[in-house]
Amino acid sequence: MKRVLVTGASGFIGRQAIDPLIARGYEVHAVSSRAMEAPPGVVAHHATLFDGEAVRRLISSIQPTHLLHLAWYAEPGKFWRSPENYRWLEASLNLLRLFREAGGARAVLAGTCAEYDWRFGTCNEIGTPRVPGTPYGVCKNVLQEVLASFSAETGLSSAWGRVFFLFGPHEHPARLVPSMISSLLRGETARCTSGSQVRDFMHVADCAAAFVALLDGPVTGPVNIASGKPVTIEALVRLIAQIVGAPHLLALGALPMPPSEPPVLLADVGRLSGEVGWDGSRDLAAGLEETIRWWRESIIDHAAAGRASGPSGADGS
Amino acid sequence: MKRVLVTGASGFIGRQAIDPLIARGYEVHAVSSRAMEAPPGVVAHHATLFDGEAVRRLISSIQPTHLLHLAWYAEPGKFWRSPENYRWLEASLNLLRLFREAGGARAVLAGTCAEYDWRFGTCNEIGTPRVPGTPYGVCKNVLQEVLASFSAETGLSSAWGRVFFLFGPHEHPARLVPSMISSLLRGETARCTSGSQVRDFMHVADCAAAFVALLDGPVTGPVNIASGKPVTIEALVRLIAQIVGAPHLLALGALPMPPSEPPVLLADVGRLSGEVGWDGSRDLAAGLEETIRWWRESIIDHAAAGRASGPSGADGS
Repeated sequence: MKRVLVTGASGFIGRQAIDPLIARGYEVHAVSSRAMEAPPGVVAHHATLFDGEAVRRLISSIQPTHLLHLAWYAEPGKFWRSPENYRWLEASLNLLRLFREAGGARAVLAGTCAEYDWRFGTCNEIGTPRVPGTPYGVCKNVLQEVLASFSAETGLSSAWGRVFFLFGPHEHPARLVPSMISSLLRGETARCTSGSQVRDFMHVADCAAAFVALLDGPVTGPVNIASGKPVTIEALVRLIAQIVGAPHLLALGALPMPPSEPPVLLADVGRLSGEVGWDGSRDLAAGLEETIRWWRESIIDHAAAGRASGPSGADGS
Repeated sequence: MKRVLVTGASGFIGRQAIDPLIARGYEVHAVSSRAMEAPPGVVAHHATLFDGEAVRRLISSIQPTHLLHLAWYAEPGKFWRSPENYRWLEASLNLLRLFREAGGARAVLAGTCAEYDWRFGTCNEIGTPRVPGTPYGVCKNVLQEVLASFSAETGLSSAWGRVFFLFGPHEHPARLVPSMISSLLRGETARCTSGSQVRDFMHVADCAAAFVALLDGPVTGPVNIASGKPVTIEALVRLIAQIVGAPHLLALGALPMPPSEPPVLLADVGRLSGEVGWDGSRDLAAGLEETIRWWRESIIDHAAAGRASGPSGADGS
């Protein structure tokens, strides 16, 4: 019996991981600090990972064989430098230790491209130096180092999925893709930088499916979770504007380029496709069409309900 | 008012830090998981650092301005690879966070030469790569990285003292210097390797005094805590045998050289002497004479009491 504990299960990535886990035969236990409607086939648990004793009781009652740890502080604009990062590091170490002590066999944790030295363009899991420039990157990088050492010493099988740029349903509305979509859908000017930055964008459901494939296999160590398809921000936002049908509202170059913005930040996906054997990224245009449809419905729903849309929050990076 | 919380205060280094702290005008609060006789002028607290809530209450009641965190798992032979290291990392992060949240201003934590890549001979705080080969080294190295980031983000003033090789009263009897001394004092053959390794040995009271000087000043970041005086193991044990008056009992080369043993492992003490301004290492022969005197009395005391000598243990690295 494969029994998985998913953290951040109501978050941006986490909510998309449930179906692929069930499809692969996992008994799914989801823990969240927020009240959560459990999807069919999921056992929902309410707990904060900051409460060490609550986590001990939770793990003791579930006895999970697998751990998919996606929860982290993810408030846009704040998560890069927030002291919450240190608390999440501490909570993650506690979770990992208790999971292993209770007999857990396989763990996959979420990392980030922010662990890498961004001067190197295309990031390879082994070759690219890790020189994180923010507390978020420092804490994730450190957690990966401890995970590797802890796994080697205790016989835990583990992997570390480094996430790059995502888009899709339930993304925080302040982030690039949702803010562009909602401006355009409302008929407002959508301002952005010149858009020359080259990035790897992946649909969040693909990201979750890749995490589940990683969890369900034997590959250990860091693995980039990305599409492997470079796109400029300019091409991305032009595609969004074209799908919405409002290319005239796009104001490329209206915002200054942040000085810390690297020109190229891409993922080497050789491990993900070659070793994990996952290569299921949907086409960018198809993913954006689906995402825009979701936002259109979401905005209409929220407008009808007379309140602002406000998904995401504390524990879904 | 300078009010310092000392962890590991009953440990090998910690017990030597009390007097220098009092001499520099600190109100000293010592916490230990073991029952401890409080030296005059010290407020002793009984708590385990693994209990987050107990640490919160402790810090809230003391309101320390300074933190000297020396506690760690230090059982000889076991501490290099023990999973206890991960727990101490977690407990240290928790302690650091609560100290800062309660208004603490200055923290010094104990690091180790095991953080460095040992292929480089003489270790410099900034220039020498850190490639720890053990869970002990990994956890200390990671704690230092988080300390630097945490301090930069929260405005905490902090430093990190990297300890090399120590000797002195109350050292665990299984370690090199005490085991040589006690064999020789008992008139038994003292076996060791060829002794060609070059090391930096420091008297533990000097180490503690250097930590207190570091705490009491403005220097931030990693600082090697060492004598700066290279000595071969051969010269060290010959000196011990000569002081005991039993050079004929020394069996150099009777033990094989462990394969992982680096030929040279020394400390660049430029920061300690130049920036911290501490240069008070006693002469090696004088330090050993004092140590041998202590062991002689300790062995006589313990023999009289009809029990084996067994100092040190869980929380004094």
